[in-house]
Amino acid sequence: MGKGELTRQAILEHALSLATRVGLGGVSIGGLATDLGLSKSGLFAHFQSKEALQLQVLELASARFVDTVLRPALAAPRGEPRLREIMERWRQWSHLHALPGGCLFIAAAIELDDQPGPTRDRLVALQKDWLDAVAHAVKVAIDEGHFRADVDPGQMAHDLNAIALGYHWSSRLMRDPLAHERFVNAFEALVAAARKGPARPSSVRPRTRAS
Amino acid sequence: MGKGELTRQAILEHALSLATRVGLGGVSIGGLATDLGLSKSGLFAHFQSKEALQLQVLELASARFVDTVLRPALAAPRGEPRLREIMERWRQWSHLHALPGGCLFIAAAIELDDQPGPTRDRLVALQKDWLDAVAHAVKVAIDEGHFRADVDPGQMAHDLNAIALGYHWSSRLMRDPLAHERFVNAFEALVAAARKGPARPSSVRPRTRAS
Repeated sequence: MGKGELTRQAILEHALSLATRVGLGGVSIGGLATDLGLSKSGLFAHFQSKEALQLQVLELASARFVDTVLRPALAAPRGEPRLREIMERWRQWSHLHALPGGCLFIAAAIELDDQPGPTRDRLVALQKDWLDAVAHAVKVAIDEGHFRADVDPGQMAHDLNAIALGYHWSSRLMRDPLAHERFVNAFEALVAAARKGPARPSSVRPRTRAS
Repeated sequence: MGKGELTRQAILEHALSLATRVGLGGVSIGGLATDLGLSKSGLFAHFQSKEALQLQVLELASARFVDTVLRPALAAPRGEPRLREIMERWRQWSHLHALPGGCLFIAAAIELDDQPGPTRDRLVALQKDWLDAVAHAVKVAIDEGHFRADVDPGQMAHDLNAIALGYHWSSRLMRDPLAHERFVNAFEALVAAARKGPARPSSVRPRTRAS
């Protein structure tokens, strides 16, 4: 990596961290220049426009997500164990040091849902890819004989996403000490219902936290 | 209502509509004065500070939510029918004409989770009240004999909130044509698992949309 690329990376790291707290809209070339003590013209040379900068912040977050959630989870055995690994890493993702304001994708979903344009389009494409990857992991669990053949991978991926959103909400906004336990119970109920054999009831009294 | 109170109401309606699109932080006394062609000093007389204005926008949203979701749902028969009514009205809430940018509480949750202060505190209190009301509706369904006695109302309220968050995400950000169907399937699976008698499996292939 040349010096220019290193600088670009450092700027993007800072921008990602900032975006989790103030939103993508709060990340501007001028603001970054002030924060980092760099010239505004130098930053323009790296990013051309605020939109290009926002897109690159999204790409950085996506690369990080693949590196810390998806790729390591693929090392787990196929089927239910891999889905468990995905889910636990997804939960931990919003607590990463690099994301002081939580998950960028969840924040950007609220920020951009009313703002048509390339940044919104890219976010939607990234989220679609992610839900497809989760649905694929469910499909593999069916193929491995861990889940029943009539489980709908698209529905289960949607339900797992809802569980991730619920956890983010209760841990970050509500600071609920039960957030982790609620997350585990919701996930276990969904998995139990998808397994072969008689379905187990969900929404039972909280179990001891799995960890 | 005097003329002053009518003006205050009209200003708050506009502020609420705006806040759903640009966030509570995007609602300012100066901005509202420009939008509505009123004097800034007149607006200050009504609201004193940006924080007071934001708090009143939250109160208006809360009053609206009680009027359109909670209170009408209480007219439904106790137990599962009432919980169904709550859930369907909760789903429709984010499509209200007065909320062009979707649910203010979901948007504010993301916006305020890192911003300590009275507005965040009030949001957390309102959301706690709402989840308590949902948990109470679950409790009533247990008392009525519709749900099993070992269903945990707090867990089920958390799970229902996650379903509402998942619906908001997939309908508003993803514009997923299956959003409504996914919502219905997730809710039905949760209710089926909570019912007396043998639990039914969740995440089954999508049923026909309940209208």
